[in-house]
Amino acid sequence: MSDSLIETSDERLRRLVREVLDLLDKQKLEETILRHQPMSRHELIESLMHKQHQVALKQKLDSLHAADIAFVLEALPQAQRLAIWALVDPEMDGEILLHVSDAVRESLISDMDREELLHATEQLDTDEIADLAPDLPEEVMQDLLKSLNDQTRAQLESVLSYEEDTVAALMDFGMVAIREDTTLGVVLRYLRQRGDLPENTDKLFVVDKQGVLRGVLSLKRLLLRSPDARVGDVMSRDVVMFHLDDDASVAARAFERYGLLSVPVVDDQQRLQGRVSIDAIVDYIRQESDEEALAQAGLMQEEDLFASIWKSVKNRWVWLGINLLTAFASTRVISLFDDTIGRVVALASLMPIVAGIGGNTGTQTSTLIVRALALGLVDSSNVRRLVLKEIGIGLLNGIVWGGVIGALTYALYRDPALASVMAAAMALNLLVAAVTGLFIPLIRARLDLDPAIGTSVLLTAITDGMGFFIFLGLATLFLLN
Amino acid sequence: MSDSLIETSDERLRRLVREVLDLLDKQKLEETILRHQPMSRHELIESLMHKQHQVALKQKLDSLHAADIAFVLEALPQAQRLAIWALVDPEMDGEILLHVSDAVRESLISDMDREELLHATEQLDTDEIADLAPDLPEEVMQDLLKSLNDQTRAQLESVLSYEEDTVAALMDFGMVAIREDTTLGVVLRYLRQRGDLPENTDKLFVVDKQGVLRGVLSLKRLLLRSPDARVGDVMSRDVVMFHLDDDASVAARAFERYGLLSVPVVDDQQRLQGRVSIDAIVDYIRQESDEEALAQAGLMQEEDLFASIWKSVKNRWVWLGINLLTAFASTRVISLFDDTIGRVVALASLMPIVAGIGGNTGTQTSTLIVRALALGLVDSSNVRRLVLKEIGIGLLNGIVWGGVIGALTYALYRDPALASVMAAAMALNLLVAAVTGLFIPLIRARLDLDPAIGTSVLLTAITDGMGFFIFLGLATLFLLN
Repeated sequence: MSDSLIETSDERLRRLVREVLDLLDKQKLEETILRHQPMSRHELIESLMHKQHQVALKQKLDSLHAADIAFVLEALPQAQRLAIWALVDPEMDGEILLHVSDAVRESLISDMDREELLHATEQLDTDEIADLAPDLPEEVMQDLLKSLNDQTRAQLESVLSYEEDTVAALMDFGMVAIREDTTLGVVLRYLRQRGDLPENTDKLFVVDKQGVLRGVLSLKRLLLRSPDARVGDVMSRDVVMFHLDDDASVAARAFERYGLLSVPVVDDQQRLQGRVSIDAIVDYIRQESDEEALAQAGLMQEEDLFASIWKSVKNRWVWLGINLLTAFASTRVISLFDDTIGRVVALASLMPIVAGIGGNTGTQTSTLIVRALALGLVDSSNVRRLVLKEIGIGLLNGIVWGGVIGALTYALYRDPALASVMAAAMALNLLVAAVTGLFIPLIRARLDLDPAIGTSVLLTAITDGMGFFIFLGLATLFLLN
Repeated sequence: MSDSLIETSDERLRRLVREVLDLLDKQKLEETILRHQPMSRHELIESLMHKQHQVALKQKLDSLHAADIAFVLEALPQAQRLAIWALVDPEMDGEILLHVSDAVRESLISDMDREELLHATEQLDTDEIADLAPDLPEEVMQDLLKSLNDQTRAQLESVLSYEEDTVAALMDFGMVAIREDTTLGVVLRYLRQRGDLPENTDKLFVVDKQGVLRGVLSLKRLLLRSPDARVGDVMSRDVVMFHLDDDASVAARAFERYGLLSVPVVDDQQRLQGRVSIDAIVDYIRQESDEEALAQAGLMQEEDLFASIWKSVKNRWVWLGINLLTAFASTRVISLFDDTIGRVVALASLMPIVAGIGGNTGTQTSTLIVRALALGLVDSSNVRRLVLKEIGIGLLNGIVWGGVIGALTYALYRDPALASVMAAAMALNLLVAAVTGLFIPLIRARLDLDPAIGTSVLLTAITDGMGFFIFLGLATLFLLN
């Protein structure tokens, strides 16, 4: 028994990748032999061995969960990846495409012809097709739409018509709807007759003849209450529900807050349209945090570990170009003070400190504000308080770190005037950083722009430019006598 | 009906906060009146009105979900927060403490006495007590342990003995164990008699007399299969399960990969110890991504929006101190070249560009490597390929951006020698950045240090220092004739 229990560990998955690579290597070795020798009995045997390895590899793959095959494909270089992809059972192609990252999905899809893609996508649920849709060639989508029945096509078109960050985009159609005037016993018989339940079903949705949502019946109550009870008497009427165009991030927070497993989605007339289940939410949360982490580092999207250099480079260049422009712009400030630097060269090695620490404190402030904004914790009733607090912190930081830096400068150069200029510039720039780190996200949020994106570029440009200007300006005023 | 459905939106929660603030304001106004006038009939009426508002506020609070009260507390300044906290039904205190952020929890707990804390925690499940344990005063924990029955105390002590990032720390004890030789009908009767199911129950755990896990029975099968079927014949034996000391992040990825709702946890002898359910996983994923985002910005932990300036400042100072040291260290390089800068002052305004862009490309590389490491995608079989690829990108970046920057420099200064030095320094530092961004996380991972933390400080220190050194060094060699 203990062998048939799946133990999930990174070690197991890495072993899998090694096994697959091993089998691939053997196969390749034999192919090489086959290509370089004339046909002989010896070769015939090897050709059989080659087939044996291929069979072993295929058996191995057929025994794996789609998510595990996706992991293996993700960890393999392009050539081996496509070799494995060709061996995978076509029935699993669709599932696997759902599990791999965007970058790898692209490389797999570009290796499939129209027929294969059509076959792979036909196996999927409507919401899953919708997830793949952006990556499918136009012609495959056309064929696919033709092959669907009217209801499914209508569902698919409806899902695709909504924005990516709405509840509609997270929705699936795996739901069971029942009427409130039946008994639990009838519902149980109906379910047994149906023979299956959609994945992640923790509740049934109770609707009237018009499809308007009346309440929900949890499987728990269905199991625990008497079969003679009426659905309408046992169902819960206090239901968390979403509308089609609700914000996906708000939906995700509702799942977290109330510990939900599935939530019905209704239209403006409260008619049941679908449901959102926890696995779509988990994917969404993970994807959001991934995107944020990548955007922070100036990457447009996740990279395939084995993509060509050219592809990777394109992913990184927009950001580098912007950075180059802002860096040039903020350092133009320095050239205004060429004369000052020519006369007090020590300024050159001190000015990056003022600019750098300013950028770091500003980032601390903006990160906290962006997070508070995302949680909906900031509004007009408390924003004044926040501003005062951050300015207070900026002042305190300025006095303390300005003092520390002034002292360090004095220790290095034994020049009280230079040390004072350094301390004052540091204090002023920390205040600038606090105010900038506070207002950039607040203003972006007010303008309905995502406060998480773009804040850091703007912030660093300002703290750099202001840092140089304040420091060199003070130096010009007080050191050039 | 449509009124009784809960609509979850940020607007609703913000309205809640405003309502509560409003009720608090009215109460405060009346308290002020009461304090300044001698007792009179007029006053008696107002005192009654005051009571009325307090009653309204209390009713409002009693109607809310613990998670919503937590949100309101989170969004209120300290004084109002404690006023509301005092009005909350003590039965809900424990639940609310679980929902608020660490920072706010601290402020609420410090407002409670021993009795109140003991009462609040006694309402909770064992795993929930374990979650609060780090924030509870030692004496309360002692009292609490005394008040628990033997089984619960043993469970609590066992959970607390494991590290924070293990499966044991995510585990709860809300599970139903059954035997394989009973029928589904008997199980159904047992559940009805039990009268309740733990939250997030999607499956029952099948164990033998020694408590060894034999398989799982999903509620779905329990509902759909014939009541006469034997559990052993219907249960699933291919079970994803965890061990107590498995890594929490690996468990989280297993939930995501296989779309799980709950997973049994076993000890070394395969005996059932507890389960991990999806809501603990969602919390864990959110917490991990939060911690990472905060650490990236140099914050030790989440801040209470309304914490004192002093508390906030302590959260931010460690990082600023480290930054100050690395900034001083890397800029000491500049002072080695005071003479060069004194003679070619333009160098001062160009050198921050070389250092800055180097830091940014290095961060792009390290972010991708850290993520690939976290997913388990990097190992000895593919690391050479990755290194070659990143060095290739570094070279290509160096040639292209070095060229662009050289051209810009020429446009600004009309000095071909200066432009060439700038281009060469940029190209070299981009290569340094690629190599550094690649090897810092790889080496940290090899040394079993978290590659996500500390990488950025080290990286920027190196790209800054090297950027200054390469640029000013080349300038000294080629421009001072």
